[in-house]
Amino acid sequence: MGKNRLEAFSDGVLAIIITIMVLELKVPHAAEFSALQPLIPVFMAYLLSFVYIAIYWNNHHHLMHTVQHVSASILWANMHLLFWLSLVPFASGWMGENHFAAMPTALYGFVLLMAGFAYWLLQKAIIRSHGPEAVLAKAIGNDIKGKGSLVLYLLAIPLAFTHEILADAIYVLVAVWWLIPDRRIEIQLNKNGN
Amino acid sequence: MGKNRLEAFSDGVLAIIITIMVLELKVPHAAEFSALQPLIPVFMAYLLSFVYIAIYWNNHHHLMHTVQHVSASILWANMHLLFWLSLVPFASGWMGENHFAAMPTALYGFVLLMAGFAYWLLQKAIIRSHGPEAVLAKAIGNDIKGKGSLVLYLLAIPLAFTHEILADAIYVLVAVWWLIPDRRIEIQLNKNGN
Amino acid sequence: MGKNRLEAFSDGVLAIIITIMVLELKVPHAAEFSALQPLIPVFMAYLLSFVYIAIYWNNHHHLMHTVQHVSASILWANMHLLFWLSLVPFASGWMGENHFAAMPTALYGFVLLMAGFAYWLLQKAIIRSHGPEAVLAKAIGNDIKGKGSLVLYLLAIPLAFTHEILADAIYVLVAVWWLIPDRRIEIQLNKNGN
Amino acid sequence: MGKNRLEAFSDGVLAIIITIMVLELKVPHAAEFSALQPLIPVFMAYLLSFVYIAIYWNNHHHLMHTVQHVSASILWANMHLLFWLSLVPFASGWMGENHFAAMPTALYGFVLLMAGFAYWLLQKAIIRSHGPEAVLAKAIGNDIKGKGSLVLYLLAIPLAFTHEILADAIYVLVAVWWLIPDRRIEIQLNKNGN
Repeated sequence: MGKNRLEAFSDGVLAIIITIMVLELKVPHAAEFSALQPLIPVFMAYLLSFVYIAIYWNNHHHLMHTVQHVSASILWANMHLLFWLSLVPFASGWMGENHFAAMPTALYGFVLLMAGFAYWLLQKAIIRSHGPEAVLAKAIGNDIKGKGSLVLYLLAIPLAFTHEILADAIYVLVAVWWLIPDRRIEIQLNKNGN
Repeated sequence: MGKNRLEAFSDGVLAIIITIMVLELKVPHAAEFSALQPLIPVFMAYLLSFVYIAIYWNNHHHLMHTVQHVSASILWANMHLLFWLSLVPFASGWMGENHFAAMPTALYGFVLLMAGFAYWLLQKAIIRSHGPEAVLAKAIGNDIKGKGSLVLYLLAIPLAFTHEILADAIYVLVAVWWLIPDRRIEIQLNKNGN
Repeated sequence: MGKNRLEAFSDGVLAIIITIMVLELKVPHAAEFSALQPLIPVFMAYLLSFVYIAIYWNNHHHLMHTVQHVSASILWANMHLLFWLSLVPFASGWMGENHFAAMPTALYGFVLLMAGFAYWLLQKAIIRSHGPEAVLAKAIGNDIKGKGSLVLYLLAIPLAFTHEILADAIYVLVAVWWLIPDRRIEIQLNKNGN
Repeated sequence: MGKNRLEAFSDGVLAIIITIMVLELKVPHAAEFSALQPLIPVFMAYLLSFVYIAIYWNNHHHLMHTVQHVSASILWANMHLLFWLSLVPFASGWMGENHFAAMPTALYGFVLLMAGFAYWLLQKAIIRSHGPEAVLAKAIGNDIKGKGSLVLYLLAIPLAFTHEILADAIYVLVAVWWLIPDRRIEIQLNKNGN
């Protein structure tokens, strides 16, 4: 089974997720500037979630470069990742509409945690079917960034109930961490002469 | 007529179906955990439907591998399948919002039945235009899995009115049955040296 | 400019149009069969519109086979077609929710008329930039089907106010007419040895 | 990193943006022609925004022709552009529903301004990674059209509060300006023998 259609399907789902999130920004009836104010937290949540989905799309793109053949476990690990990412618009909308209240902020962290975990499982599935000498296995190494993100999400969930602002800070911090270009896969691909 | 654009269009429709289903998970106004409780059955229905659409995407992908040329009957059989799958979000939302009540559960089974029947028709259309010696004809053989699923859906529809939990169990069971990788097409493709 | 991306964009828009139409089928709150009854006309309108969008996708696919290079006029004629098709979900929803009342039925006919006209313009743009000896010019000939559909839509619009059922019958009739495979382009492509 | 998947993802997002905008045209309950009248400004805003997204798709398509390799800065400049374009449906809906009132008209101009600025940044990122002798650098030259549009948007925002109709006129004018085919990139590509 080729990977082109898996990429195309994932692209489609990610493009739709990133775009329907904007539907949470409900058009206000009044035409005054003040009518936009209740939307500010929804907008902030949208911005954060847009960046997260964009990061996932970017990382997914690189990950797929290392895939030679798509096994059933890779296919379902990919679907599992898309499932958790499909919940981001819901969690993002709930967090935004409730002005970053404790419970929605914790749920947002939980969805990010599960998406991160699903991404880790997808990496495992790719490595298992391509062998320890394959590009991906060398590229991710200890995968400090991946595992570190999971630990930070785990930290943010209880913090949402005690110091909500710190949970938000962690979500922003992890996003910024991933925005710094990750060249591990590119370097390994170049080494292997691809 | 090439099959690439048929695949691309089907991928697009399936990607949108799987993603707009999540819009049934309406963002609650309250920020408490209890506000999520009424959404639990909607979430369960979403999870089940996500798995079904993912299975159809996966099977459709394999099916298209066996297609050499797209005839008008294949094209319209494919559209017919997409039509019934496009009703899954509606049936899923109705079932979830009504806590798996009898009538919505039966309708869900009816939509799955019609989608399964449409898939069977699509297989017929492919075999008819490619001949009984083609890959697909050999691969599906008696098609116990396909026909068995239809029988199980037919069983589930009346059961929804008498033992609703058994109808749900059948939907889950059929999904699990299909999750077990189906290697028939791959094996035949390898035999034919593709 | 290549035609691949124009096809991909058109496929994306058509796939989304065909799928968001189903959102007009609003999930009812009650779980009884009777709760589905008010949805029957909406469902009928959805079915008709699904078939129309599928026909347009199919014809568009064939039309693009005859395109060698995409000029600015082809690109904008294509966008013009997509614009009118994007109004089908609105017209379809209005017609369905108002049980095929006169005015919504007439508007539906108007949108079909404009989409048909836009398709005719797109054909003109392709022929103009490829010359009268090109595949498409020979294939469509007098284009009785295309022009006949426009005449029938023009007939249906006033009929919607006097004999509404005849307007509906015309919409169904034209769809059935187009469902009969149109081999003109295929025949010309084969003649030219493509 | 290849540019195909970046194009495919951008196409997907633009196709969804252009199509979900039509959801702002809410189906009215009454079946009379008068029920459509409140929708006229929403329709006008939809038409304008449809043309803008179509122009961006067209220009983006040409821009990508000049890209040989996708750097991290090109990728994120592209995401930044998609982010602002994803806000067009919101701004368009707000402007339409409030009959082109001052504040929503100004916000619409602001979103166009930021999208135009993001497009300019994307051009910069492409030129920076391909060198001043590359196709794009020669093709855009002084980029009077790009910079001129930004100046016109900047003019329209304050005008929205004093002479609202002039702000609308500017948005239409800029769209018409871009509708005139821009052959700079094509000419340079031909010169370079591509």
